[in-house]
Amino acid sequence: MSISVSTTQSGITAEAFEKIEKKLIQAHQKLYDATGQGNDFLGWVNWPVEYDKHEFIKIRDVADKIRSTCEVFLVIGIGGSYLGSKAAIDALNGNFFNELDSKSPRIYFVGNNLSAQYLQDILHLIEKKDICVNVISKSGTTTEPAVAFRIIKQFMKNKYGKQGAASRIFATTDRSKGALKKMSDFEGYETFQISDDIGGRYSVITAVGLLPMAVAGIDIEKFMSGVADGFAEYKEASILKNEAFKYAAYRNILYQNEKKIEILVNYEPSMIFLSEWWKQLFGESEGKEGRGIFPASVNFTADLHSMGQYIQEGERHIFETVIQIKKSQTDLVLPYDEKDLDGLNYIAGKSISYINEKALQGTSFAHVDGGVPNCLIEIDEMNAFNLGKLMYFFMISCGISGYLLGVNPFNQPGVEAYKKNMFALLGKEGFDDLKKTLLF
Amino acid sequence: MSISVSTTQSGITAEAFEKIEKKLIQAHQKLYDATGQGNDFLGWVNWPVEYDKHEFIKIRDVADKIRSTCEVFLVIGIGGSYLGSKAAIDALNGNFFNELDSKSPRIYFVGNNLSAQYLQDILHLIEKKDICVNVISKSGTTTEPAVAFRIIKQFMKNKYGKQGAASRIFATTDRSKGALKKMSDFEGYETFQISDDIGGRYSVITAVGLLPMAVAGIDIEKFMSGVADGFAEYKEASILKNEAFKYAAYRNILYQNEKKIEILVNYEPSMIFLSEWWKQLFGESEGKEGRGIFPASVNFTADLHSMGQYIQEGERHIFETVIQIKKSQTDLVLPYDEKDLDGLNYIAGKSISYINEKALQGTSFAHVDGGVPNCLIEIDEMNAFNLGKLMYFFMISCGISGYLLGVNPFNQPGVEAYKKNMFALLGKEGFDDLKKTLLF
Repeated sequence: MSISVSTTQSGITAEAFEKIEKKLIQAHQKLYDATGQGNDFLGWVNWPVEYDKHEFIKIRDVADKIRSTCEVFLVIGIGGSYLGSKAAIDALNGNFFNELDSKSPRIYFVGNNLSAQYLQDILHLIEKKDICVNVISKSGTTTEPAVAFRIIKQFMKNKYGKQGAASRIFATTDRSKGALKKMSDFEGYETFQISDDIGGRYSVITAVGLLPMAVAGIDIEKFMSGVADGFAEYKEASILKNEAFKYAAYRNILYQNEKKIEILVNYEPSMIFLSEWWKQLFGESEGKEGRGIFPASVNFTADLHSMGQYIQEGERHIFETVIQIKKSQTDLVLPYDEKDLDGLNYIAGKSISYINEKALQGTSFAHVDGGVPNCLIEIDEMNAFNLGKLMYFFMISCGISGYLLGVNPFNQPGVEAYKKNMFALLGKEGFDDLKKTLLF
Repeated sequence: MSISVSTTQSGITAEAFEKIEKKLIQAHQKLYDATGQGNDFLGWVNWPVEYDKHEFIKIRDVADKIRSTCEVFLVIGIGGSYLGSKAAIDALNGNFFNELDSKSPRIYFVGNNLSAQYLQDILHLIEKKDICVNVISKSGTTTEPAVAFRIIKQFMKNKYGKQGAASRIFATTDRSKGALKKMSDFEGYETFQISDDIGGRYSVITAVGLLPMAVAGIDIEKFMSGVADGFAEYKEASILKNEAFKYAAYRNILYQNEKKIEILVNYEPSMIFLSEWWKQLFGESEGKEGRGIFPASVNFTADLHSMGQYIQEGERHIFETVIQIKKSQTDLVLPYDEKDLDGLNYIAGKSISYINEKALQGTSFAHVDGGVPNCLIEIDEMNAFNLGKLMYFFMISCGISGYLLGVNPFNQPGVEAYKKNMFALLGKEGFDDLKKTLLF
């Protein structure tokens, strides 16, 4: 088992876990027999074994072509069309991938905001570079990516001409309908599919996540093997053997006990965006009908010197879920210093990852002492296989959690509210009445 | 007034504001007559007018020297010795400063974690570059920066020899005592001062923040003028005229009304670390004695597609504080497209910052409708002056807030808990008994 969950520092009794098991089994069952709410968005559950192998090969081939063609690869997308691949690339390639890896194109994510400065910076960055673009949008009309793509497309056409641009633009979108599909057919872009029954936050295991990952040099076959390993393992309905059950039980019991904020903790800066992906997964799946745990994250040990005080002694409405990577991808040793003015000689000769591990253990003890329940998710090491498995682990846990909470974990009705207002304020046709309401 | 606070969408009545005014005036007074808890850490209050002008000139001169000497500038520090300058540099220079600004050295922040991979990446990045280092630590024994500095110092000595290394290392530390001060005297590093009466999270307006900012090409004189402008403006004890009063009142009234989570909202990716700085400021100042608002942040519009659902419809224990930059530093226009397949022609010809502004307004309306109180902090434009003023605004608000809450806003006793455990687990002398407690 390459991913294990320990709830021994959660303060939750064996009885409490037993008491919730039946509900867990029911919630879990709903994912497989598709009898729960949102059952038209369960395509991701069996995807690890049922995914389109033909398209998978095309993803690898196209990624190879992109890697050999361009110096910069732009990924245009927002939400689930952005966070999954960003999380994976950072986690596996580190924070300085763009500056250090000379064999891969630099990868920038665009269309995930409406900042003029950000977009202007990107235009400067790509000015004299050879570019390829992956635009990711089911509809093709989501404002942020559509705005960015319109500007980038113009840049590409100016630089490469109509045909040249088309050969460098790859669209991940609906298989048959929508603006981006229409545009792709018209312009002649190569396309990849967004399945009808897989929502954005569950799409990292599809072309949405896989193409950018492959362009970053990640072995997506290993990633998908990890996903499939998770599929096999988390199918079993048992609170003792199924780690996804343990995690779902832990967080739901605590929520019932008025612990309203879950803090996902990492000890590697490369995992910052894994937490952002996790926030969307859980926040968007559970935050509805006036319910749901508020998902937050900290990056230790950095944030022990910012949020550490609050976690140790602030309001006791929080709990922590700590991800520990047992074996570091690289390591280095703290040297001995004759003068020892900094007083570190007691750990000279120790590796940095050893010191990091002790920081993790010491912190968990301290926070538990301070009244913050802890759950530890241990991972052998960070690699493509384990990351795929971890992401699938979170997806299954999230599905179970949402059903336990009694909400539909697969819709996101609240995301439309700001869009409607924005359309009205921007003067879009059909929103005139709303505009009047907003302005008077 | 370049920074204004609007609480019209907070749902708080004029009466509620009036009711709290007397307490606000008392809390505010404590900052100036130093009669509150933690009054030995109030050096930052008058610092905007009392700071050491001689050292300030030295900071600028040294920064100029560094800018002309090195290709890479490493800033070693954690918590307040890191977040302030990181926040300022990103906010003023954008997310891609290191890649785009060829006139400034690349700036990397180190010693804010215990990740072997991160440190290894940094070593690769500086391998063949000319380096200068600013190590920032009051004591010089804080584990994270001390570990990084020991490794970087070795690298520097190998590369430049003992003297050459010393001429490229700048220490910001205590004026007379501590390991780093001793080491600086011994090795011959130029030093800058960390005042005894200014805590880390209030130190961005001292050499701690100013030297890295100046190396990044930021006009620190303008920054300090903004800080001084804030000093003059936020001295006045009035809920009508003092924007810091309004903000402190807003968040404290909501906290009393069971709104336990404050979400700081930005609409520019360059402001992500300003939120991180803000989290330390408020979280570390208020999170004690089982009390305090949990500080969180989102980056819109990106996170409208991840945390947006929760904010719109999740548990109603949240409120938002939105920072709006009225005038963008740069802008570009959405082009017209004959086919209009993406349906954006209704906003063709509009600027991106205009669209961003409408997104902000539409979002606030939507979230307020959904039961999330909003406070709007409007800033004319993002520049060094306004950023200095904004940071000072938050510092004053935070001091007032902490006193209103009834805690000492200037200590952080909880930060020691993890350190003690870590020392014990690492086998440090004097922690043997604690080690036994932890392991058995």
